[in-house]
Amino acid sequence: MNSFGRLFRFSIFGESHGPGLGVLLDGVPPGISLGAKDFLPDITRRRSGAPGTTPRQEADTPLLESGCHLGRTTGAPLLIRFENKATQSRDYEAFSQQPRPGHADWTARVKYKGCHDPRGGGHFSGRLTLGLVAAGVVAKKVLAGVVIQARLLSVGGRLDQEAAVSEAMGRGDSLGGLVACRVDKLPPGLGEPFCDSLESLLAHLLFAIPGVRGVEFGDGFAAADMSGSAHNDCIVDETGRTATNHCGGVNGGISNGNPLAFQVAFKPTASICAVQDTHHFGHKRVEALRVGGRHDACFALRTPVIVEAAAALVLADLVLLHRGPC
Amino acid sequence: MNSFGRLFRFSIFGESHGPGLGVLLDGVPPGISLGAKDFLPDITRRRSGAPGTTPRQEADTPLLESGCHLGRTTGAPLLIRFENKATQSRDYEAFSQQPRPGHADWTARVKYKGCHDPRGGGHFSGRLTLGLVAAGVVAKKVLAGVVIQARLLSVGGRLDQEAAVSEAMGRGDSLGGLVACRVDKLPPGLGEPFCDSLESLLAHLLFAIPGVRGVEFGDGFAAADMSGSAHNDCIVDETGRTATNHCGGVNGGISNGNPLAFQVAFKPTASICAVQDTHHFGHKRVEALRVGGRHDACFALRTPVIVEAAAALVLADLVLLHRGPC
Amino acid sequence: MNSFGRLFRFSIFGESHGPGLGVLLDGVPPGISLGAKDFLPDITRRRSGAPGTTPRQEADTPLLESGCHLGRTTGAPLLIRFENKATQSRDYEAFSQQPRPGHADWTARVKYKGCHDPRGGGHFSGRLTLGLVAAGVVAKKVLAGVVIQARLLSVGGRLDQEAAVSEAMGRGDSLGGLVACRVDKLPPGLGEPFCDSLESLLAHLLFAIPGVRGVEFGDGFAAADMSGSAHNDCIVDETGRTATNHCGGVNGGISNGNPLAFQVAFKPTASICAVQDTHHFGHKRVEALRVGGRHDACFALRTPVIVEAAAALVLADLVLLHRGPC
Amino acid sequence: MNSFGRLFRFSIFGESHGPGLGVLLDGVPPGISLGAKDFLPDITRRRSGAPGTTPRQEADTPLLESGCHLGRTTGAPLLIRFENKATQSRDYEAFSQQPRPGHADWTARVKYKGCHDPRGGGHFSGRLTLGLVAAGVVAKKVLAGVVIQARLLSVGGRLDQEAAVSEAMGRGDSLGGLVACRVDKLPPGLGEPFCDSLESLLAHLLFAIPGVRGVEFGDGFAAADMSGSAHNDCIVDETGRTATNHCGGVNGGISNGNPLAFQVAFKPTASICAVQDTHHFGHKRVEALRVGGRHDACFALRTPVIVEAAAALVLADLVLLHRGPC
Repeated sequence: MNSFGRLFRFSIFGESHGPGLGVLLDGVPPGISLGAKDFLPDITRRRSGAPGTTPRQEADTPLLESGCHLGRTTGAPLLIRFENKATQSRDYEAFSQQPRPGHADWTARVKYKGCHDPRGGGHFSGRLTLGLVAAGVVAKKVLAGVVIQARLLSVGGRLDQEAAVSEAMGRGDSLGGLVACRVDKLPPGLGEPFCDSLESLLAHLLFAIPGVRGVEFGDGFAAADMSGSAHNDCIVDETGRTATNHCGGVNGGISNGNPLAFQVAFKPTASICAVQDTHHFGHKRVEALRVGGRHDACFALRTPVIVEAAAALVLADLVLLHRGPC
Repeated sequence: MNSFGRLFRFSIFGESHGPGLGVLLDGVPPGISLGAKDFLPDITRRRSGAPGTTPRQEADTPLLESGCHLGRTTGAPLLIRFENKATQSRDYEAFSQQPRPGHADWTARVKYKGCHDPRGGGHFSGRLTLGLVAAGVVAKKVLAGVVIQARLLSVGGRLDQEAAVSEAMGRGDSLGGLVACRVDKLPPGLGEPFCDSLESLLAHLLFAIPGVRGVEFGDGFAAADMSGSAHNDCIVDETGRTATNHCGGVNGGISNGNPLAFQVAFKPTASICAVQDTHHFGHKRVEALRVGGRHDACFALRTPVIVEAAAALVLADLVLLHRGPC
Repeated sequence: MNSFGRLFRFSIFGESHGPGLGVLLDGVPPGISLGAKDFLPDITRRRSGAPGTTPRQEADTPLLESGCHLGRTTGAPLLIRFENKATQSRDYEAFSQQPRPGHADWTARVKYKGCHDPRGGGHFSGRLTLGLVAAGVVAKKVLAGVVIQARLLSVGGRLDQEAAVSEAMGRGDSLGGLVACRVDKLPPGLGEPFCDSLESLLAHLLFAIPGVRGVEFGDGFAAADMSGSAHNDCIVDETGRTATNHCGGVNGGISNGNPLAFQVAFKPTASICAVQDTHHFGHKRVEALRVGGRHDACFALRTPVIVEAAAALVLADLVLLHRGPC
Repeated sequence: MNSFGRLFRFSIFGESHGPGLGVLLDGVPPGISLGAKDFLPDITRRRSGAPGTTPRQEADTPLLESGCHLGRTTGAPLLIRFENKATQSRDYEAFSQQPRPGHADWTARVKYKGCHDPRGGGHFSGRLTLGLVAAGVVAKKVLAGVVIQARLLSVGGRLDQEAAVSEAMGRGDSLGGLVACRVDKLPPGLGEPFCDSLESLLAHLLFAIPGVRGVEFGDGFAAADMSGSAHNDCIVDETGRTATNHCGGVNGGISNGNPLAFQVAFKPTASICAVQDTHHFGHKRVEALRVGGRHDACFALRTPVIVEAAAALVLADLVLLHRGPC
């Protein structure tokens, strides 16, 4: 389904080229100051515009349809909507006959019996992450005092990111990217052993972001190559602070009060200008496909704020579980 | 919480040194042939005994307490219990004063106000994965026809695994490991965009396995360094088969009918023989700690069957969601 | 929270005097024909206008914001919104000082720390049931072939309902009412023993309708006064048909294929014209209160279609659980 | 499914004539004093023995298999098991051919394809309520300070209950009964508008008790016959206390701090000695059926403690949601 959270629950909806998209938040504590302007910084960070991002420009003005009164949350469900205006729907139906490699055209056709909205990726579009980012803004308010910061580490494996993107665009190609996130001032005791481990919940929502292929905590995959003497974090004082942070701030599924640290791998944008040979279901043979439309050459550039939002949504739920909703 | 699944739901319980442990399964379709002997192969794979695994030996005989009648599942909740017999509880209480590095001693103390059962790790023990494996056996039966195979790729970064473990044991140290899992003959259409993406659900449960630090699908973290032209999988025939499988069998959160492929990174065993300097909360200073007890030098050796179980539990739920419980 | 359902899940949102209200549906099967006109019959049944109902008139035009494409559901979340236009917000803030008897003014103030939207009852308003009715329209489409019919049995204990309402209005008073619902052609096998019994799920959602004070199945409360020989329903043929239907179509929490029958008791409208003596929290004493605004003298008149919607939402979820979403 | 609760969740399992039955509790706060003797008073209240109750006598000794250490809860899942010993399994298979009127034989056969355990009602047995009662004991401990009291109001519509039962037994018949429950010292603010209203959650679990046919709050069904001026409860002081309690302690789905009051209708025991004419699926005709076995002539006699347990389970979850788990 399109929902997540136990006490602080969000549900996303919408399509890339339909009337709009957004998010419905339930369990928002009452009394949080909230207005359209609160969303601007994060929405701006997510917005396209930099080289390597899509030329599609939307106003992305959040409409607070319910759950707010006199500039504060009321405790009732909070609906945040965004309208689509700059849509240019071409013949996306063609992709149901010749599904684009790396996209959900084929799986959507199988799952929804061909009834899905194919325009601009429909419900599968990365544009839906706008709802996530909006929800994340509210979650960050719930988490007042906790500091969540994600940043792009590399693009296509390179640290000179602008040059890498520029070269890829020149080739009509796209690039993946690596994002690191760090959360400071998180209280210890969040998460549970096993099914609701802190890593489980974070990974659940991080893998809900389109294009994520890997999630790791602390040393992550490098830990598989390490010895215990190198990986263990020794506690150095009575606050539980550790000298190192190989575990990324989690032991036994529960936050330990040290910085929470994780990395997220994003695949390259599936839409590329280069011609690809792929099956045409109507013509029953492999044929050349050229994918048009407006796309990011490296959508990973826009993802740090989305990663922050996903983390904030999980953590806000856990903090409310921990301290009660009031 | 300790439960997972929408239609096919399991709940684990138990402690390492208490009366026992096990799993409660709800939503098991009726009429599945099931007896204690069905559990032996997977329980044997999980069992210790090889060099590098703990010397603790338990019979691990599954007790089917409910939900079975005349050798078949009834559709009612299925309780599978295992008794603990080979326990050697020493003074684990000491670890609440001087928490073991890399363990949950400190976070458990914070979360449970010092009331948790510390013996052998209590509810945090890797022994609890026995319940997961048992649940996985039932899930695999629900998935009749689907083939799930996990294997250890490397230990401590080395392919000569036996030698690596032997050397680590000689140093009183431990090692992490890398596990790959592949699922064949999975129907397309499983999973959903966003919050219940196939990757989200799998990662959720994989990160519930103690010691997992990373999960990646298909090319995973390598995808972050790739270009779209190298990562995209072109479809080559009318069944949706792709020439390559960089995406690991999932597009848009939904299985595409190609093999599902993912990797899981396990950290090194936290318990090592070497002395570690870590804080003593009673004495209020850093002191040397020597961790005794019986442990795996590399618990990753025992994890492939646990990874399979976690995958089977997620996939069984999705298959039942897909086709209805009957 | 404001959501319900496992496979077919709805979430309501909105306020009586805010921008609008509506419902978000997740898990709607793809390919269902759906347009604004499909909602008219049930919305009309719910609408006010008859003697005894509120003079407030809203257009109640459903806006399908997502999840529909080319006149069919897509399988993605379906957002249905209604705008509020005919609002007349007076000084509802006064009610936080002197809560209206029978209303949620006092409990809302306690729960939401005084941050709730008090205008017209805010999120507590019976107007929110418009979202339920809209969701019910979709649910009824999922249940094609199943016939759900609710009707008003009595008002204020009288069968001459129009006269009863007219007399109550003359006294500045209000009346409760009793609604019966019958569902025909429901397949057997829906529901489960214990926690997800058919009665449990139906009662859960029926008691979510504002003003419901009682729910009973089959003979209901009368069964408490009966003997087993009078209450048992004997099966008379190979389809499971019973000669009588004292149990209301459910045995052991599972539908038995006979008509599902239940009754719902609605309390009288809390807003009455008569003066009531109740505590003024600001003045710290009991004072006379006269409640203005536009209200139903008997909102039960408008509830049969709401009862049908609640039943349809539960049953649609169960039917999808039973047969799979496709 | 067989689970309920968001933060404090129980799952029941077991069969009447299998190895045993019980309950798994998750989300139990750590540090609650708990031992086998704590269960005795409520288990004794539920136990048979009085005239009109089944002659089957079980020791009903609770086995605390996990989640307890040194006489206190640990915060880990709590498994409470009961063994079946006094079983007398006769040919219950016959009932799959000629389903007993008023029982779940027919619906179980349809739902579970004939694979259910028919002995003594299997998973449908009223004996499963022993697990509910045990869970309720833990819930009541979570609710320290809240007073829950249920009592039998009438049997077969009569207040002279012993005589009524005795007469029914003499006729080989059975009787239903009416139970009232009152909860004092419940904090205001529990429950939510709409889907998780206090009434919704309570009714959900009350209707999970086998044999419940009706649930009403406050004046309940009588409210449908009342006028608003008679039903409204006026607040008389600054604590929110009301002069009357027609609403039963709930406004807008939220507890108002006054006593919570509700009634539950139980149908007559389905098993009666009298011969019943009902369909024989094997012989394809209506035939006389005489139901043997050991049964309650009026199981309602044993239900007040079960009603209390159901209420306690719902309220404990809400209290933990309200104040946080710690």
